[in-house]
Amino acid sequence: MAVSLRVNTMPADKKKIVLNWKGNFRFTATTQKDLSILFDAPVEYGGEDTAPSPTETVLASLAACTGYDVVSILKKKRQNITSFSVETEAERNNEPPKVFTKIHIKYIVKGTNVNKEAVERAIQLSYEKYCSVGAMLKKTAEVTTSYELRQD
Amino acid sequence: MAVSLRVNTMPADKKKIVLNWKGNFRFTATTQKDLSILFDAPVEYGGEDTAPSPTETVLASLAACTGYDVVSILKKKRQNITSFSVETEAERNNEPPKVFTKIHIKYIVKGTNVNKEAVERAIQLSYEKYCSVGAMLKKTAEVTTSYELRQD
Repeated sequence: MAVSLRVNTMPADKKKIVLNWKGNFRFTATTQKDLSILFDAPVEYGGEDTAPSPTETVLASLAACTGYDVVSILKKKRQNITSFSVETEAERNNEPPKVFTKIHIKYIVKGTNVNKEAVERAIQLSYEKYCSVGAMLKKTAEVTTSYELRQD
Repeated sequence: MAVSLRVNTMPADKKKIVLNWKGNFRFTATTQKDLSILFDAPVEYGGEDTAPSPTETVLASLAACTGYDVVSILKKKRQNITSFSVETEAERNNEPPKVFTKIHIKYIVKGTNVNKEAVERAIQLSYEKYCSVGAMLKKTAEVTTSYELRQD
């Protein structure tokens, strides 16, 4: 396996987000490219459950970040993936700040003649090198991974 | 200032996210309450810019997390806020993993007879105690804050 494998990762330039309060605990975030992300608090915490909470969104971002890496690497390795999903489960501190303490990431890869070692290597490269969200969350949480490979 | 001030924070129970690949670098995440978060990669990284990137979404989650805290605390302090926004700007590592290295959070609070000390204290409590996303990101990034208070 070439260590020099080049992977498209997200841009290194500065990021800016503007978040506007929409009443109660609803917020709309807007990126520099004018794309939106909606937030709300759960009903049990005074919100209305109209959108995910900030911590759910962070966990989703982890799944998307590592999902991007794995799809990107498997494409470069010319693997024929027909379906791909990532399940992330997390436990949090009971006391504030309620940081994630344990995260499990499960990858479900489906395709035709997909190479098991390619999948394992893609997951490992994301975990060890590329996934920026993972690298941040690993500072507070024990992150573990697993995968299922289903051939079409 | 009472240290016992109680703030509604997000639930401490487990979180689970399922992320499905939608082709190219588009992904849809779904929460346990069936709420969705869309992701894409920027055009310059092979995506189509149909939705924010994972790292932009993490930065937005930070703004929403601390925004929730500050609005929640100011409501409890019976401050009359008419408009509220949070701007987050971040710098990242040049090399993978491209973690955030510097983050600035600027709060813009508008209202009637809003108490300056109440705003400062709310920001401080979020930073030091309540904001779970902030507590995670502080492990890799230097996080600074500022605010503007505009009276109606």
